[in-house]
Amino acid sequence: MEKVLDYIRSHRDAFVEELFEVLRIPSISAQTEHRGDMVRCAEHLAAALVKAGADHAEVMPTEGNPVVFAEKIVDPKAKTVLVYGHYDVMPVDPREEWTTEPFEPVVRDGRIWGRGADDDKGQSFMHIKAFEAMCATGQLPCNVKFMLEGEEEIGSQSLYKFCREQKRLLKSDVILVSDTSMISMDTPSITCGLRGLTYMQVEVTGPDKDLHSGLFGGAVANPANVLARLVASLVDDEGRVTIPGFYDDVRELSAAERRALNKAPFRLADYKRSLHIGDVAGEAGYTTMERTGVRPSLDVNGIWGGYIEEGTKTIIPARASAKISMRLVPNQDFRKIAKLFERYFRAIAPRSVKVDVRFLHGGAPYVSPTDLPAYKAAEKAVEATFGKKPLPFYSGGSIPIVSAFEEILGVKSILLGFGLSRDAIHSPNESFGLDQFQRGIETIPYFYRYFAEM
Amino acid sequence: MEKVLDYIRSHRDAFVEELFEVLRIPSISAQTEHRGDMVRCAEHLAAALVKAGADHAEVMPTEGNPVVFAEKIVDPKAKTVLVYGHYDVMPVDPREEWTTEPFEPVVRDGRIWGRGADDDKGQSFMHIKAFEAMCATGQLPCNVKFMLEGEEEIGSQSLYKFCREQKRLLKSDVILVSDTSMISMDTPSITCGLRGLTYMQVEVTGPDKDLHSGLFGGAVANPANVLARLVASLVDDEGRVTIPGFYDDVRELSAAERRALNKAPFRLADYKRSLHIGDVAGEAGYTTMERTGVRPSLDVNGIWGGYIEEGTKTIIPARASAKISMRLVPNQDFRKIAKLFERYFRAIAPRSVKVDVRFLHGGAPYVSPTDLPAYKAAEKAVEATFGKKPLPFYSGGSIPIVSAFEEILGVKSILLGFGLSRDAIHSPNESFGLDQFQRGIETIPYFYRYFAEM
Repeated sequence: MEKVLDYIRSHRDAFVEELFEVLRIPSISAQTEHRGDMVRCAEHLAAALVKAGADHAEVMPTEGNPVVFAEKIVDPKAKTVLVYGHYDVMPVDPREEWTTEPFEPVVRDGRIWGRGADDDKGQSFMHIKAFEAMCATGQLPCNVKFMLEGEEEIGSQSLYKFCREQKRLLKSDVILVSDTSMISMDTPSITCGLRGLTYMQVEVTGPDKDLHSGLFGGAVANPANVLARLVASLVDDEGRVTIPGFYDDVRELSAAERRALNKAPFRLADYKRSLHIGDVAGEAGYTTMERTGVRPSLDVNGIWGGYIEEGTKTIIPARASAKISMRLVPNQDFRKIAKLFERYFRAIAPRSVKVDVRFLHGGAPYVSPTDLPAYKAAEKAVEATFGKKPLPFYSGGSIPIVSAFEEILGVKSILLGFGLSRDAIHSPNESFGLDQFQRGIETIPYFYRYFAEM
Repeated sequence: MEKVLDYIRSHRDAFVEELFEVLRIPSISAQTEHRGDMVRCAEHLAAALVKAGADHAEVMPTEGNPVVFAEKIVDPKAKTVLVYGHYDVMPVDPREEWTTEPFEPVVRDGRIWGRGADDDKGQSFMHIKAFEAMCATGQLPCNVKFMLEGEEEIGSQSLYKFCREQKRLLKSDVILVSDTSMISMDTPSITCGLRGLTYMQVEVTGPDKDLHSGLFGGAVANPANVLARLVASLVDDEGRVTIPGFYDDVRELSAAERRALNKAPFRLADYKRSLHIGDVAGEAGYTTMERTGVRPSLDVNGIWGGYIEEGTKTIIPARASAKISMRLVPNQDFRKIAKLFERYFRAIAPRSVKVDVRFLHGGAPYVSPTDLPAYKAAEKAVEATFGKKPLPFYSGGSIPIVSAFEEILGVKSILLGFGLSRDAIHSPNESFGLDQFQRGIETIPYFYRYFAEM
């Protein structure tokens, strides 16, 4: 292991420089104008994988953004690790809140700043560099396959079909994913649960054009007011989602499970301070850890309608819209939830408006049992580099494709993430600690060794 | 009168061409990038007034956009009419909904299409051309003053001070305003009531940055969800505004007044069809005419927060905002309503968010008694050109400065408007009928004659 670690440590600065090249490509999957950047980023990563030691790497077309696939077969009889990551990133707005340019990465205060620094270019790149270190030192104990997609932030639409069509190519013993966080550098953790997601868009339409709010105000339903009422109706005063049937399939934790979950270090005062909020808010009867880990939620991700520029305009807007997503827990079905949402939203809309409800994307919740050999290997690897046994952790986030891997490929995923909540993924000023990046690269080879030995 | 009418009819096409020159100037007062266009438009109108026959015309600076003032004194002992209008226009968004360019006016289907065609460049320009016709034919029976402002659509902020400082200059016997509508060309009407206005902007702030809705969703108050709840709380299921004290000063009409008001021709089916709405909506117990004419209302004019672009983004937005305005009726005080709004909005906001409430602008309701000599003159003038005695009409709109004229200058205004609801003022595809424009120019000289004789 010494040789691998020496290689990693002696290439520390070069690895950061190489990551910067990836971060400079604005591969925002949600915005069609970046279609060319997606291909450019995929090609860049394929080349990086060959340089790192892959037998071959390919940019494989899909109906959407391409998938980067690479592999190195050391021994057909050895175990095979499939590394999954994504090279697409979130949009950057509100851009004016970024301290430095989102696609001109910099190191400041011991951290890498830029869109994708953590999610998931930084974390995916750790795997490429750990792989390079193992290849360069002749210490790769497993076969390795890489599958890096370009649509994770928009629902991995093309990857489902890709997996169904490429089952043989993707054959593996475990899928290794670094797209999650730890509790802290002092309290390492491994994510053993992810929430699912149902993402909807609604539009409320009233008159066929914006109306003068003086001439018509009070007599014509205002779509923005109606939308506010409809959105407000989706959650009650107790923080519970009001959609009939929403909680029907939710697995309720036992008292023992709840106690175990609440043992993870958590200080409400620190949490509130770190977010600059006066108070937390959520479903009555549950702790913050439970609310994000094992309870479903409903959030408006965006809302818009009418005049939103400087100054005043006295109109009744013709329409108003919202993007609304729900995080789901075992055993909620994201398709069923989408249907329940649509039915309820239509049912509560008044006759004075028309409503349009669209399903944008979704994914199932995921659970990674802690008694899995691969989970044990990950646990030992983290303990080797962090000096502490990691806690199992229920994350509130979603990686919809992970549950699909199990369904389609029949392979479990290990969520070995090195993010921290301070990384501000999806927000302006995303960052990734140099220590996280370094520790991540060092931990991965331990995983391969322990996993090969099991 | 024949000579005046002949002049008007023989200059019909030229007047439209001259109006087009005014319409081509994008004098949008709400957007600071059009500051230069405001001055350009004012200078253009001052020149047009001199050309029409004014003794002199000036572009008078204010703290905001300039006021165009012009006058012609025919006899110091004659009555003086002060014409008020505004040369600023509403913003044009959503621009993609315009069939032709908003600032490239065209005539199509007997109508003038373009921003400001009616509100209020078209209607103000009728006065300049009627004035020209009376001057050119030696038939001007009153002294005339023009005051055309550039901030009506943003609350006439500078004009209040201008009026207080220029009382002598603005001395007059009546103020004549064409910035309102008629019921129809077959049912002419004169506006005898205007609603007041209180325009607020609210911002709900949660965490100090957008958060990942998976990692935090369910545990942190979402400002967009909270805003929706707060906005929904402002109006109850009966369509009544819930702000405590909101209705305290509302003058309730007598049964006889309500009967008279509901006599004006109105067909609900036509109204719904013209707006493409499935149903009307408003305060329970009142008719559509009452809801817009004599009852106050509350409308969201704009709402925004979070991710509003293409695709999906899974965030809890750091903040969400809304522009909310209330139309007021006698005897509501717009400043008091602003205070009641702010107090209530703050009171109902949960501790998990911060709220900012700002008053953007306001104005008092206005009533023009129908037994006023100037109102009688207007009534006779409309009857002369439309062949029917006009109905008194309560408009739902607001011209805040009109009640201020009474307060500051001690002069009543006559709201002799020639707009129609189909003109789509404040909306995309604003238009003004050539017949409205022509009939307006012809009606105005009759007003001067009857008013001079009274």
